[in-house]
Amino acid sequence: MADYPEQIERLSDMFRRLGGIGKKTAMRHAFSVLDMNEEEVRDFAQALIAAKTEVCFCKVCKGISSTEVCPICSDEGRDRSTICVVEDYRAAMAVEKVREYRGLYHVLHGVISPMKGIGPDKLTVKELLSRLDGTVKEVIIATDPTPEGETTAMYLSRLISPLGVKVSRIANGMPVGGDLEYADEITLRRAIEGRYNLE
Amino acid sequence: MADYPEQIERLSDMFRRLGGIGKKTAMRHAFSVLDMNEEEVRDFAQALIAAKTEVCFCKVCKGISSTEVCPICSDEGRDRSTICVVEDYRAAMAVEKVREYRGLYHVLHGVISPMKGIGPDKLTVKELLSRLDGTVKEVIIATDPTPEGETTAMYLSRLISPLGVKVSRIANGMPVGGDLEYADEITLRRAIEGRYNLE
Repeated sequence: MADYPEQIERLSDMFRRLGGIGKKTAMRHAFSVLDMNEEEVRDFAQALIAAKTEVCFCKVCKGISSTEVCPICSDEGRDRSTICVVEDYRAAMAVEKVREYRGLYHVLHGVISPMKGIGPDKLTVKELLSRLDGTVKEVIIATDPTPEGETTAMYLSRLISPLGVKVSRIANGMPVGGDLEYADEITLRRAIEGRYNLE
Repeated sequence: MADYPEQIERLSDMFRRLGGIGKKTAMRHAFSVLDMNEEEVRDFAQALIAAKTEVCFCKVCKGISSTEVCPICSDEGRDRSTICVVEDYRAAMAVEKVREYRGLYHVLHGVISPMKGIGPDKLTVKELLSRLDGTVKEVIIATDPTPEGETTAMYLSRLISPLGVKVSRIANGMPVGGDLEYADEITLRRAIEGRYNLE
């Protein structure tokens, strides 16, 4: 039985390391690279290296940034009295897209998960506390509504509330456009608990 | 609204060019690269360039190869009287996996598709004909059982049969382990047409 050329196998292995990519898809990606022109492939290789070497963590919010302090943290127009705590940078970008929130962020780099051996010390909790210097009036905890996200929210709340800073949690309920028939029980229960009066 | 660092956007764009990758998946891949260590990322970049620059087409079968003539075509142990015609190299590798076929291959690099403006001149048909020098006794056409694959099979059959070379087509029927309830009508019709006697 003949094999693929070693170079193709190696490239396909690299694609698999990205995670969530199976053997066949990785091989398909490797063949797509063969279909690109050489300049494009060199650009791709360069983009990989640039992303890894030129992107760092913002020293304030710990989100990714190509500058020491990210554009959000250095934006004088943002409301410095509110910090929205998220699990990762992509969650912060999701909140940004809403164009509603004008405060700052703090990226935890994960959630507390005893199962995976992740305690608060593995997250940027200490860095978050050091930002609560009196300017900050509210911390909005926007971790995912998963068991780990909820645990992390509770943990942070117990840590921060005693400091006299308001701690809030994003609401649970039916997603807009969702179908009650397909909603899970916990979501529906939270949606009923969180009901509000119509005018 | 803040954006992702430009390096991340650029890398995510490169992933999208692989095809079949949406915006969110591409971004997830870009973040996976950030999670790799720098050596791994450099290996990835190197693997991209090596695959593109060191892999060429075998001058006999037109399959991909890292040598001028691929390992299959240069294997003296293979049956040189049979050529299996496939759409692409991956199809040849799929046939190889069966470990049943011991002949040679010919990679067409596509199928005839008037809709996409692909005529026989864009495929390696001429190169296939030049291989029919008397040694070859049978050409097995293993293009996909799609309308384009069937058209290509018919076209090749009409071209090759008059040369006194046997032309065959891989069988259609129910995939092993498949469910009749979910089989499409054409497959089922072909399965009935191609029925064989049990002992």
